Amino acid sequence: MAGSIEPIANMTAALSHLPGIGPKSAQRLAYHIATMPLEEVRNLATTIWQSRKNIRFCQKCGNYTTGELCEICADDRRSTEQICVVRDPRDVSAIERMHEFQGVYHVLQGTLSPMDGVGPEDIRIRELMERLRENHVQEVILATNPDVEGEATATYIARLIKPMGIRVTRIAHGIPVGADLEYADEVTLSRAMEGRREM
Amino acid sequence: MAGSIEPIANMTAALSHLPGIGPKSAQRLAYHIATMPLEEVRNLATTIWQSRKNIRFCQKCGNYTTGELCEICADDRRSTEQICVVRDPRDVSAIERMHEFQGVYHVLQGTLSPMDGVGPEDIRIRELMERLRENHVQEVILATNPDVEGEATATYIARLIKPMGIRVTRIAHGIPVGADLEYADEVTLSRAMEGRREM
Repeated sequence: MAGSIEPIANMTAALSHLPGIGPKSAQRLAYHIATMPLEEVRNLATTIWQSRKNIRFCQKCGNYTTGELCEICADDRRSTEQICVVRDPRDVSAIERMHEFQGVYHVLQGTLSPMDGVGPEDIRIRELMERLRENHVQEVILATNPDVEGEATATYIARLIKPMGIRVTRIAHGIPVGADLEYADEVTLSRAMEGRREM
Repeated sequence: MAGSIEPIANMTAALSHLPGIGPKSAQRLAYHIATMPLEEVRNLATTIWQSRKNIRFCQKCGNYTTGELCEICADDRRSTEQICVVRDPRDVSAIERMHEFQGVYHVLQGTLSPMDGVGPEDIRIRELMERLRENHVQEVILATNPDVEGEATATYIARLIKPMGIRVTRIAHGIPVGADLEYADEVTLSRAMEGRREM
């Protein structure tokens, strides 16, 4: 940016690579960091670096962890008979926030996307199949997003699992609780109609 | 945040202290950083820390610099007879982007705000008066923001300088170029009327 000294320009460039942070926000952040006490900036930088360095993938489910296994896989109160398949660790956090699901997860670390060259061997489908062969699993809940890639991934995995005689389910899509029917998009509305239940 | 491992929670907490980054954005950023290659995260953290460490204040004008003097004060093609007074270094960048102003700056590093306990001794007014006494200055342009604090600061400084026989001006406020008169707020419109010129 014109008129900025090099350290500000460097910070702006580095921060603008982060998602949701455009050049303007990045510059605003850089100027803010410039006014922060040295000690606070050191803490910020150290937290970012040390935290990232401590993050590994759970050897079982592919979720984030600081050890060998994630907190969920390491917790023997969780039922290993239900596996919920999600795209990434953020989805695990979202489902855990409900405090309802008692099973374990399998994090695919991506979804099938032929357009972007992401095939079945690029996401953790092989690892899922291994878990299903080696353990007694009663149900696989496919909780990928209700978008094109998420649906394609769910359909692909369901076809692989069904011949194994394991129950495969897909999370329901419909009108969000508390939302106004009037503002729901057609696809969501159509899904809500399809998924209707007896009362 | 529920369901997040400690490194993610730590990053989320650290990032949410930055301006314009709420808890949700902070968590999104933390999860993104978790997926970034180690080397990229190291670069990000190092850039933030090293850049901040290299930022000092110009001994003359209070702008950001990496040396003793900022680029502008060190540039002897700039006229020291015109001093443009601004709140912070971002304002210097904004004015420099015009490539029109040939004088130098004085960065107050704040504005008067009795409500927040910021008085004349808390911002760089004394340093400005010293510069005016020690140098031959023809005009002081007050370019603080057109808000309550900025106006109060401009008025305060103008009263101090006028007895010295130095010309004091205030940047014009009015309808932004390209903006629609219809959508201008009343105060801006009233300023635009007050500041009208012969054609």
